Amino acid sequence: MQLTKRLAAEFLGTFWLVLGGCGSAVLAAKFGGDGNPLGIGLLGVSLAFGLTVLTGAYAFGHISGGHFNPAVSFGLWAGGRFPLKDLVPYIVAQVLGAIVAAWVLYQIASGTGGFSIDPTSAGAFATNGVGAFSPGGYSPAAGFLTEVVLTAVFLIVIMGATHARAPAGFAPIAIGLGLTLIHLISIPVTNTSVNPARSTGVAVIVGGAAVQQLWLFWVAPILGGLIGGIIYRWLGRD
Amino acid sequence: MQLTKRLAAEFLGTFWLVLGGCGSAVLAAKFGGDGNPLGIGLLGVSLAFGLTVLTGAYAFGHISGGHFNPAVSFGLWAGGRFPLKDLVPYIVAQVLGAIVAAWVLYQIASGTGGFSIDPTSAGAFATNGVGAFSPGGYSPAAGFLTEVVLTAVFLIVIMGATHARAPAGFAPIAIGLGLTLIHLISIPVTNTSVNPARSTGVAVIVGGAAVQQLWLFWVAPILGGLIGGIIYRWLGRD
Amino acid sequence: MQLTKRLAAEFLGTFWLVLGGCGSAVLAAKFGGDGNPLGIGLLGVSLAFGLTVLTGAYAFGHISGGHFNPAVSFGLWAGGRFPLKDLVPYIVAQVLGAIVAAWVLYQIASGTGGFSIDPTSAGAFATNGVGAFSPGGYSPAAGFLTEVVLTAVFLIVIMGATHARAPAGFAPIAIGLGLTLIHLISIPVTNTSVNPARSTGVAVIVGGAAVQQLWLFWVAPILGGLIGGIIYRWLGRD
Amino acid sequence: MQLTKRLAAEFLGTFWLVLGGCGSAVLAAKFGGDGNPLGIGLLGVSLAFGLTVLTGAYAFGHISGGHFNPAVSFGLWAGGRFPLKDLVPYIVAQVLGAIVAAWVLYQIASGTGGFSIDPTSAGAFATNGVGAFSPGGYSPAAGFLTEVVLTAVFLIVIMGATHARAPAGFAPIAIGLGLTLIHLISIPVTNTSVNPARSTGVAVIVGGAAVQQLWLFWVAPILGGLIGGIIYRWLGRD
Repeated sequence: MQLTKRLAAEFLGTFWLVLGGCGSAVLAAKFGGDGNPLGIGLLGVSLAFGLTVLTGAYAFGHISGGHFNPAVSFGLWAGGRFPLKDLVPYIVAQVLGAIVAAWVLYQIASGTGGFSIDPTSAGAFATNGVGAFSPGGYSPAAGFLTEVVLTAVFLIVIMGATHARAPAGFAPIAIGLGLTLIHLISIPVTNTSVNPARSTGVAVIVGGAAVQQLWLFWVAPILGGLIGGIIYRWLGRD
Repeated sequence: MQLTKRLAAEFLGTFWLVLGGCGSAVLAAKFGGDGNPLGIGLLGVSLAFGLTVLTGAYAFGHISGGHFNPAVSFGLWAGGRFPLKDLVPYIVAQVLGAIVAAWVLYQIASGTGGFSIDPTSAGAFATNGVGAFSPGGYSPAAGFLTEVVLTAVFLIVIMGATHARAPAGFAPIAIGLGLTLIHLISIPVTNTSVNPARSTGVAVIVGGAAVQQLWLFWVAPILGGLIGGIIYRWLGRD
Repeated sequence: MQLTKRLAAEFLGTFWLVLGGCGSAVLAAKFGGDGNPLGIGLLGVSLAFGLTVLTGAYAFGHISGGHFNPAVSFGLWAGGRFPLKDLVPYIVAQVLGAIVAAWVLYQIASGTGGFSIDPTSAGAFATNGVGAFSPGGYSPAAGFLTEVVLTAVFLIVIMGATHARAPAGFAPIAIGLGLTLIHLISIPVTNTSVNPARSTGVAVIVGGAAVQQLWLFWVAPILGGLIGGIIYRWLGRD
Repeated sequence: MQLTKRLAAEFLGTFWLVLGGCGSAVLAAKFGGDGNPLGIGLLGVSLAFGLTVLTGAYAFGHISGGHFNPAVSFGLWAGGRFPLKDLVPYIVAQVLGAIVAAWVLYQIASGTGGFSIDPTSAGAFATNGVGAFSPGGYSPAAGFLTEVVLTAVFLIVIMGATHARAPAGFAPIAIGLGLTLIHLISIPVTNTSVNPARSTGVAVIVGGAAVQQLWLFWVAPILGGLIGGIIYRWLGRD
């Protein structure tokens, strides 16, 4: 497949990840007001993030491999599954897709009366953060550890489920629902990134602490992705 | 497969989509009263809509292709996957199925004491709407944008997951859960249509604003479907 | 496969359906007390019922066909997929499995302090009912219509998803999640039966109105099953 | 596959099960405070436990078989699917993975202000318990019965879904969602173990009653696993 179409697929898939995952968080998580069980809550947001990847991987996996995430591209490179020369173009396409999605989401979200973004509020517009900007007030160390560990396991699941001996065709289910699981665990800690492009997309809209802390959501997920890729490279070799 | 059976399958599948998706919204979303977490909320309604398509696509996909949605039929035509000559019969069958389902749902829903429909209330009887008739008070522009973008991605997912290089047999999972995801994002905005037949079925029962705004839920989803079909036509070509 | 093992599989599968579906309703739906969102609510119960069938169909489908439900056995007979001579033994095994499950569930449920069953309360111990015994106060006519229509579509989904032209292996997902969808719609109406064995199992424990109304949860689901089987017999024929 | 890698896979899979399942319970179940529907509740925790196994089985199943649970290893031995000589190494790897996961989870959880563990509180840090340490105050007899019956059915589902005549590749879905179902039923009773390693991992952190009652969460699940393995050994034989 030619590189243009692969990059278009990564752009669209990451667009979908941010529009769907962050969109459900911004528009529907607290629908009806604080404390109203009509809203989809953290469970609904977790499901939404996972389903963006499940659907995107079935739609685009046969075109680009379906990374939608710089930490995944790094991890697959470390795991021997992705060529170094494609790393930068993939990441550029992913970040652009995330930014355009955040911009579209902003257009939609601002179409109702009471909408505004408070950049000093934890998790504003679905941004990631630690310390005062962690939804549950978790320390930077706890947030860093969480992002590293969860991204490492995510890469292990991705590489295991797409291994030649794994049942064919099921990987998007395992990977998508794996991302749902990661969100079920860690939204309270960092609002869950494990994906630098996703963090960047909404941080660009919000500014402030979301941008100042953005380095953590590049370093920790990529570090985790590298660790996971290296572990599975050993584990999955015959 | 003969056209009669294909149209019967589209009728039944769209009947199921409206009975199940709108039925869960009308009967179960707020069960126990406002604020009672026993009710299935927007998350349960989102799951229900998606599962109508997941189950319908496994049951009827091998008969009619499993569109259940005029915007999908339009989009597949634009994507080069569906013949123009079948477009009108398919859409007629879909709209009829939706109307019959809304009528059956009305018979069930009116079988309990306190039931009534207030056509001046946003989202009454699961109708779609914008402005004063948007569940979250979103503007017509925000609603139009939402319906266009989400239907476009829906078509891309449909065409990608049914592509010859995608893993065989999984498309109903990707497409059904893709519709769940779309609802997780956008029920607050328009009560989520992305399907003119679904909007028409319940609007016919409710009348009023639901009928006056019905044009938007034909134009925006079909426009989005055409855009998605054209994008994937380029993207999926070798 | 010999009849003994097929009947054992139907016994175990229906045992699982009642233990899991009714068990989640009795033990976990309102955990923490009325209004506490920790409880799994109608959404969790709907998921539980569906997952009993999804898991049971993968575990036992290759032994007995995985009916776990007299209305399914009747419907598959009407659809030309199941021999008349096995109908009575299958139904006996299903009803016995349901009764034993309800008895085990009672042993567990009564192991905590405040537990008691009030047979005059709608939906007590997960029983099905209409009128004063419908969770949402729905009339017998609405309940009857609901059970007929939903069981008919359930059979159509079952027969369609197991059709020779449907993708192989996915039927338990479509059928199980189809049962989840049916519960998402109709718990408020009848507490959802679509399965005479499930209704009988818990009614035997509770007595009272649950037994007096039990005829409806045999007649309506079986009637629906026959209708669905006949419709699909025509629809799926080449 | 060499034993080292098989044990590494069991270690990682059980690590994931405890980090994800217990992690979602500790970090996210009651997010926002008691009574706040933003938290994922028992439904979210049930989903998380199941998804650890679904994802782990796709990632590691082709390496180690994907047990992640001493009761599963015992049951598969009783069912004739697993050699006795591997039983002890597998269980050691599983317990180590669970303990390391509980330790990592403790590092994360203690990274926020108000965190502390009260070992006299039922279900503290996701520990299992009965009597005063059962989340719903269920007696030891009810807890024992629940763990035996649910583990027995779990083994039957595992053996049935991986039987040569079951559709290939779907077993991780059936088994993972089967574990979700088990949690939907029984969190109120014992906080749901069906897995001695999972119980041990968090008990080691908490001490107190969690350790004193730990024998029950070894004996009951293993007894259930043996029963399930023996039943299916008969049922699945041609």
